[in-house]
Amino acid sequence: MTTQPRQRCTHFLHGHGPDNHSPAKVLAMLAEEAGDAQADLYGKGALITSFESEIATVLGKESALFLPSGTLAQPVALRIWADEKGRDAVAMHATSHLELHEHRGYQRLYGLHGVPMADAVTPLTPAHLAAVSEPLAAVLLELPQRELGGVLPTWDALQQLADITRQKGAALHLDGARLWESAPHYGRDYPEICALFDSVYVSFYKGLGGIAGAALAGPAQLIAQARIWQRRAGGNLISLYPYILSARHGLRTRLPRMAAYCQHARAIAAALSSLRNIDVTPSPPHTNMFHVHLRGDAAALRAAACRVAEEEGVWLLGTLRPAATPGVVWTEISIGDAGLQLSAERVAALMQQVVG
Amino acid sequence: MTTQPRQRCTHFLHGHGPDNHSPAKVLAMLAEEAGDAQADLYGKGALITSFESEIATVLGKESALFLPSGTLAQPVALRIWADEKGRDAVAMHATSHLELHEHRGYQRLYGLHGVPMADAVTPLTPAHLAAVSEPLAAVLLELPQRELGGVLPTWDALQQLADITRQKGAALHLDGARLWESAPHYGRDYPEICALFDSVYVSFYKGLGGIAGAALAGPAQLIAQARIWQRRAGGNLISLYPYILSARHGLRTRLPRMAAYCQHARAIAAALSSLRNIDVTPSPPHTNMFHVHLRGDAAALRAAACRVAEEEGVWLLGTLRPAATPGVVWTEISIGDAGLQLSAERVAALMQQVVG
Repeated sequence: MTTQPRQRCTHFLHGHGPDNHSPAKVLAMLAEEAGDAQADLYGKGALITSFESEIATVLGKESALFLPSGTLAQPVALRIWADEKGRDAVAMHATSHLELHEHRGYQRLYGLHGVPMADAVTPLTPAHLAAVSEPLAAVLLELPQRELGGVLPTWDALQQLADITRQKGAALHLDGARLWESAPHYGRDYPEICALFDSVYVSFYKGLGGIAGAALAGPAQLIAQARIWQRRAGGNLISLYPYILSARHGLRTRLPRMAAYCQHARAIAAALSSLRNIDVTPSPPHTNMFHVHLRGDAAALRAAACRVAEEEGVWLLGTLRPAATPGVVWTEISIGDAGLQLSAERVAALMQQVVG
Repeated sequence: MTTQPRQRCTHFLHGHGPDNHSPAKVLAMLAEEAGDAQADLYGKGALITSFESEIATVLGKESALFLPSGTLAQPVALRIWADEKGRDAVAMHATSHLELHEHRGYQRLYGLHGVPMADAVTPLTPAHLAAVSEPLAAVLLELPQRELGGVLPTWDALQQLADITRQKGAALHLDGARLWESAPHYGRDYPEICALFDSVYVSFYKGLGGIAGAALAGPAQLIAQARIWQRRAGGNLISLYPYILSARHGLRTRLPRMAAYCQHARAIAAALSSLRNIDVTPSPPHTNMFHVHLRGDAAALRAAACRVAEEEGVWLLGTLRPAATPGVVWTEISIGDAGLQLSAERVAALMQQVVG
């Protein structure tokens, strides 16, 4: 599949659209956003410190630290909890980002040990955590579980997970890569959700659409230690202002739209669920994301999606991956600014052309 | 000292001037620089790979990797050499950035051990390295030695250091934070200097004036492994394009000016050396940087520098630090785009007003 049909499309089901990934357009927008701000200098200066205060306030935490990535933020938080607890074991789901996508940096760099919970297709439950018998420094919960289509535990289950963690004498850390996208499901504000956790990581791309960037939030003492580890890991850059400005823009402009993204994801998922040869999971979606499982040959589906792109100017499908079930492929869809421009009915009608 | 006199200045002795640190101005320039470039995605895409090829070519190395920081780049290279050599000890000068400014991340995260060479005020010589008796994975040389005012070993001493390293069966790694600034002194091109080293780190801010960013260069196999460690450490961001564009702009526009920066630094240093109550080190400078030691009271010198700033619109001094010698303070000066706008005679005349 060449990228040409995609480049000629005017509408996109997934994400915030190509302008949000155009360096020239994003940088010109950020030059406006910058105003008369001064460059940050190794974590100091009003631009970064005022944004860190804003993040802490939004999350209801004492302090926050802006960092280049979540892959930096999370092992740092876990290492600090490990030092405080005097243990190096951290319980996390088998599909945690730390297990799958970071080359086990938490083990190789931070000297931590993973205790996997549940299997790769089963959402985490309080029973999984209760079954862990070894002493833990921390428990890492991902809200929502991205690899499982963005599933969230019920509020009651979440409270139980927090209670069990405390009973074990461990710290509870939130992998909130998509926390912003989770609040509408609970109908609770961010401070109420975050109050269940001792430390919180959030991301500024994904739903918020920034270039990159992350934050760690928690007690002031944890954040003070995290600054040291950030420096050790090479993440305390002389200036982070492009990411700060981009993250701030995303937080201020897209956080208010998060409920709309989630609502539209449910509408699209419901429309797709009525089609033959398509399954949506979770159904209904818990956040703005879901997985679409398609029965059919991957190459034929790609070709059909390209025909729709050529004829209708709408790009429907990202990477198609084989599912464990023979004859089924799947893809991840997140609804953002671009998806809001497509009605659920139109998406379903076009997807029907793809799956036949 | 308020920052107001500085903000009203039109000329600056140190660095590239305030526009180079203005987020609005830099981002607007980078939006132009971007053209129709596509965003890089986790280290992939033409923007980053073509720039990495450009860096490798400039340094005469097989392969190169763009990273957010040198604090990330260097321990990664040393860890890879340690794995190859089966040893964890790395020899470096007592004032190495890894010893002084990284909270010992090379020890705490990368499991390496430092073998300090020389003391904090003595430039490294081949004799210091020859005196190291324990088995080493690697030797780290910083060209120039920033903490000592930017001193460089002679070309002959540099070759000896490389020979001794090889005799020890260790890899030779270059801390080239200011390598760009070093070539004029040797009158040799970058590939010839880098050929002495097994791996090379270079920086894109400092002399090149980028926002931030670094590169590691060396054999393709080392770079392939470095990508894994970059990911582990949280430095493999989804997009690095603001830093790539800024680094590329610096490499293309300021590298050709490096000889002029160095030549003007020598002229200014010579003029300052003729003043009472001032010493310059090294004299003459080896690069575009040098230290100025001033006899006098720090508060009085600051006040005098502010008067010059108010009256003449020229900012002469950065942070004044106490020297070991009582009654002496010192500051670091690097000549860049801003310093080129000031004649050596004018700098000396104004500095005379400061030191009296």
